[in-house]
Amino acid sequence: MTASLDAATLDLLGVLAYGELTASERLAKDAQLAPTIEDKIALGTMAHQEFGHFLQLRQHLLEAGVDPVETMRPFISALDSFHEATQPSDWYEGLIKAYVGDGMAADFYREAAEHVKDEQTRTLIQSALADAGKSDFAVQRVREAIAAEPALGGRLALWARRLVGEAILQAQQVAVERDALLELLVGGGDLAGITRLFSSITDQHSQRMQALGLQA
Amino acid sequence: MTASLDAATLDLLGVLAYGELTASERLAKDAQLAPTIEDKIALGTMAHQEFGHFLQLRQHLLEAGVDPVETMRPFISALDSFHEATQPSDWYEGLIKAYVGDGMAADFYREAAEHVKDEQTRTLIQSALADAGKSDFAVQRVREAIAAEPALGGRLALWARRLVGEAILQAQQVAVERDALLELLVGGGDLAGITRLFSSITDQHSQRMQALGLQA
Repeated sequence: MTASLDAATLDLLGVLAYGELTASERLAKDAQLAPTIEDKIALGTMAHQEFGHFLQLRQHLLEAGVDPVETMRPFISALDSFHEATQPSDWYEGLIKAYVGDGMAADFYREAAEHVKDEQTRTLIQSALADAGKSDFAVQRVREAIAAEPALGGRLALWARRLVGEAILQAQQVAVERDALLELLVGGGDLAGITRLFSSITDQHSQRMQALGLQA
Repeated sequence: MTASLDAATLDLLGVLAYGELTASERLAKDAQLAPTIEDKIALGTMAHQEFGHFLQLRQHLLEAGVDPVETMRPFISALDSFHEATQPSDWYEGLIKAYVGDGMAADFYREAAEHVKDEQTRTLIQSALADAGKSDFAVQRVREAIAAEPALGGRLALWARRLVGEAILQAQQVAVERDALLELLVGGGDLAGITRLFSSITDQHSQRMQALGLQA
């Protein structure tokens, strides 16, 4: 019962799978910066969930008769570059990255998933993008820290801006090279669609920054 | 339906839970040393399984009405010291650590689990100690590497010896401080029991070294 998946859907599965793999790796690494064992467990649990999503996506690709690693390969360089350019220097930068960075990536993937024709694939992607309490945890911890040390707010706002800048840089790179994925993302590619997409992504980013108590 | 657990069983659950938590963290970190994406996925999958075991042990402690972090706390220092003293400098040292180090730890835990009175707890511990293909993977990769570069064998044999030395050092520290756990481990504590235990652990270690093609 293998689904026949078009090139754009395969691209979306590939970038999402490698995204989950690297996000899990990074969360596990950032868990080492945790100030308490409880915090370490919280971040470790997120890493565990992301890897679980990766395994599901990988299984889905195997069942569709494609090589998961080959499907991820076109996106390795962009995602690795993003993570190398945005290594958190402390626990709070790690939390911001998990919330703001992964949040923005999830917004893009969710938009693209809406145009995926295969229903089983669409459902799988949507469940892989479920938040699972990650946002609440990051927001709570960051707000507490800024309340205790207001100067932290300025530094973290700059850090969030840098994350977004790097993410856009890498996303543009991917968009230039992967036509099919770009078309999937903008739903056909008319100007109104692109404008609506960017305004939706920007809105959601502003909401996250506001939840953190940071200036967008 | 909370099981009432004695002090020794709680100690075993605590050291095992923190052991799984740190093992998972370390495997996720070592996955970054992987030479290929397939290897990264293999090690990441092991980290995922260990964290899953940790979550099960944590849930079991919560259901028994005890605080998982407090139960793990007496063992944090010993396990952290072990990992700090044995940071792999490359992919193969990481594999040896996953196989030889975790293997020896599992031997100890398995011995102690045999004397756990509560059946549900015993079964849970035994399932947490299941190998899940970790050994086969490490053995295969290490043997291939030594076949390609025989000098590696000598270095990895020394590394394995260092791992065992550090493990014994930390285990002694724990044994001195946790009487109940020690008694559980040696099944009452007569001399014959202790001799049998050490001979069994040594045998299993030699078998692993032989499987790797390394001198014990």
